[in-house]
Amino acid sequence: MDRRLKESLDRIFFPRSVAVAGVSREQDSPGSLLLRSLLDMGFEGKLYPVNPRYEEVMGLKCYPSIESLPGDVDLAILSVPPPAVPGLVGECARAGVAGCVVNTAGFSETGREEGKLLEAEILGAMEGSNLRLVGPNCMGVYSSRGKVALFAGMFPTQGRLCMISQSGSLASITFLSALERGLTFDRIVSSGNELDLNCTDFLEYFLEDPDVEMVLAYLEEIRDARRFLGVARRARGKIPVVLMKGGRTAGGKRAAASHTAALGGSSEILVGALRQAGVILVQDLGELLDVASALHHLPPAGGRRVAVVSSPGGLAVNAADAVEEAGLELSSLAPSTVETLREILPAEGTSPSNPVDLGFGAVRPGVYARVLKAVAADPSVDVILAVGTAPASRKGDPGLLNAITEEMVQAKGEVVKPMVAVFFPGSFLATQFLRLHSAGIPAYPTPTSACRALAHYLGFHSLRDASPSST
Amino acid sequence: MDRRLKESLDRIFFPRSVAVAGVSREQDSPGSLLLRSLLDMGFEGKLYPVNPRYEEVMGLKCYPSIESLPGDVDLAILSVPPPAVPGLVGECARAGVAGCVVNTAGFSETGREEGKLLEAEILGAMEGSNLRLVGPNCMGVYSSRGKVALFAGMFPTQGRLCMISQSGSLASITFLSALERGLTFDRIVSSGNELDLNCTDFLEYFLEDPDVEMVLAYLEEIRDARRFLGVARRARGKIPVVLMKGGRTAGGKRAAASHTAALGGSSEILVGALRQAGVILVQDLGELLDVASALHHLPPAGGRRVAVVSSPGGLAVNAADAVEEAGLELSSLAPSTVETLREILPAEGTSPSNPVDLGFGAVRPGVYARVLKAVAADPSVDVILAVGTAPASRKGDPGLLNAITEEMVQAKGEVVKPMVAVFFPGSFLATQFLRLHSAGIPAYPTPTSACRALAHYLGFHSLRDASPSST
Repeated sequence: MDRRLKESLDRIFFPRSVAVAGVSREQDSPGSLLLRSLLDMGFEGKLYPVNPRYEEVMGLKCYPSIESLPGDVDLAILSVPPPAVPGLVGECARAGVAGCVVNTAGFSETGREEGKLLEAEILGAMEGSNLRLVGPNCMGVYSSRGKVALFAGMFPTQGRLCMISQSGSLASITFLSALERGLTFDRIVSSGNELDLNCTDFLEYFLEDPDVEMVLAYLEEIRDARRFLGVARRARGKIPVVLMKGGRTAGGKRAAASHTAALGGSSEILVGALRQAGVILVQDLGELLDVASALHHLPPAGGRRVAVVSSPGGLAVNAADAVEEAGLELSSLAPSTVETLREILPAEGTSPSNPVDLGFGAVRPGVYARVLKAVAADPSVDVILAVGTAPASRKGDPGLLNAITEEMVQAKGEVVKPMVAVFFPGSFLATQFLRLHSAGIPAYPTPTSACRALAHYLGFHSLRDASPSST
Repeated sequence: MDRRLKESLDRIFFPRSVAVAGVSREQDSPGSLLLRSLLDMGFEGKLYPVNPRYEEVMGLKCYPSIESLPGDVDLAILSVPPPAVPGLVGECARAGVAGCVVNTAGFSETGREEGKLLEAEILGAMEGSNLRLVGPNCMGVYSSRGKVALFAGMFPTQGRLCMISQSGSLASITFLSALERGLTFDRIVSSGNELDLNCTDFLEYFLEDPDVEMVLAYLEEIRDARRFLGVARRARGKIPVVLMKGGRTAGGKRAAASHTAALGGSSEILVGALRQAGVILVQDLGELLDVASALHHLPPAGGRRVAVVSSPGGLAVNAADAVEEAGLELSSLAPSTVETLREILPAEGTSPSNPVDLGFGAVRPGVYARVLKAVAADPSVDVILAVGTAPASRKGDPGLLNAITEEMVQAKGEVVKPMVAVFFPGSFLATQFLRLHSAGIPAYPTPTSACRALAHYLGFHSLRDASPSST
């Protein structure tokens, strides 16, 4: 990618100095929350609150203007009323600031003329400088190593995922929800109206970093679609890009226009081109995390043949349906595997072929783990889908569920093939979900969601085998 | 329905006396668990354990045989090895027992000749008597008022839902999971191989009871499809029938054959005929409960025009997409409503048209409830979909989520139109789900699942308006 663009983005995501304009002594003002979030992250560089009305904010010396700051500034966060933005952006441009984040809303997304005019003024104020801009109408950037947060309540992680979101609150919800699945981020950008830096710039920046494991995206509009497709295509089969596209329908497009000033355009053609470029398209936040979880936790895929293991027979049948409906295959177990399963399982109320139905076998300790290991040892099995849901023996007693969870975790220690778990949701299941993800077993609430995620995971790895090894 | 069949079913679901054959002093034997579950339910009639080896079990006098029992028996639960079943069924037939449940597995579902022969022997033993049989290979019946349970851990409820399941464990999982959504059952049957009584008999029995609110079903095979369709058609638009069909795919059909000896058949034609008959078809357990929740909690539907209210703008767009993808419409809010919303909401970062985007407005107390009430007052709005997910202000701090939940509950007190909530799942959300369901607001994890459920709910009520008032 363009050298200068990369340098700007490096300074935005890994700033040595950050100015925050729009701070006040009101704890809840957006500027104050942003300053607080930098302190919470443990930001290690120079921090400059800017507001001519104060000498000091949160124990830090406060400066009257960008131009009055004592040193260079990598990142300026501007949380001031819209009419004040162009002037401050001009100050940043003149002061040699690398990047600014304009958090404020009230620009082209309002549909009003003054909003569009203000955006033109901002662009005018940047002209001739090296300043790059994130937003307006965004939450800005999160950087785990750079110690920058886009929202209160975030903290540094060891993650290697990146995210681009045209909705800031969706980005922060994803950050928190992903934690429960053992997914953590290195960098996140809430890109808002994308007046200057756009989703393609961020995608290229993330994908060119060999340490990035996966890129998640929520996008309502892809302004520079041709370039976006080219960038995605180069990562095809190498780094997964999982995209939740907003504005798929006429109603969604209208909503996107007032949310981030997205222009719409023919989504059918775009969707086809994105698929061709290897982008994984998902429908909602649940599916976004389902797919990310499979790609993160599972080893590279071998093939599409799935073995189902279940204690409730009805869910075994449901899982077999879900496997085929997601375009996957049910393995035909080898006769020797069926024989082994016959020895492990009670003779009645069970099935030793795929889907393997443990019946009440799951009640006896050790049976579930032995079945998983026997199935995994079969060369005709590529992936194992283990249904963990079981009737609790007493109202709310998670005894059997916990026992099955532990047997899955135990088997996982010896099974190298990809394995996912299905637990029907319930408030009493949170423990099982956390435990399984911590053991590297992605867990899903239904066979349908598990198989949808597996199909994407397998699709990605099939591209991986097909893609040339050089870029 | 047939008078005599109804009488038999009444005696099975509301027995005055129950015999349990196959009890032992092992606490964990299936027969003992079944006896224990009757005691746990507080069964009020005569209870006869049967086993020639004991004088007494669980403090009850134990009898050597069905024929030795001192009084009439309405229901006999047989949990004995397969070869002993035909003889016991013959005893029941001669003793004038109304119905027996054969829990034991090991019959035609094994695919082995001896299993099929045993089933033929059972039928032979019943011949010429009035005895009716549930199963074999099933868990039997749950009856809240009859104080009979099909599994340990069940208890009487005040529910008016019924369920027919060809998987016993799925029935018991549904019973427990439904509780979290405020859904409780009056009667459930796990019908197994359906050697005698089949799903159509149970469907007709449930649908002819004017107190039954809804029938849920998990079926792998509908043996008597023509009669089933006729029975369902008579309830079309009156009592919802929500069906999760197992064995939709080739792999699922094979699995169903070894689970309950289901024969398969062309599911495409059957699915079309079921839809025509007004049956609501769902794909998995999650959707089954999603739909049941909408039908149970919401008032009869007016129309398909949905207003979306959301604080995260990205989820507002996603919800607008989900509305149209589910075949629903987005309401066009009246200018006066938009004006009212403009007064309630901050000017920037929000949208006063549908989908209504509260932006950071949701942070201020009272705003969410006022927006819900303003939207509900608009005559162009039929249904309200409220997205409650919001970025938590601190890791795991549910403060804002709880506040939004309470505002939804408060608004619900004044809003008569159907309203559903969408919360992205997470272990910290269980509280919100329980609270909302207890207030009659069905809650869903994604706009997609909410809209799918709403589409079924609206479809049912549109049939209701179209159906003639007499049967």
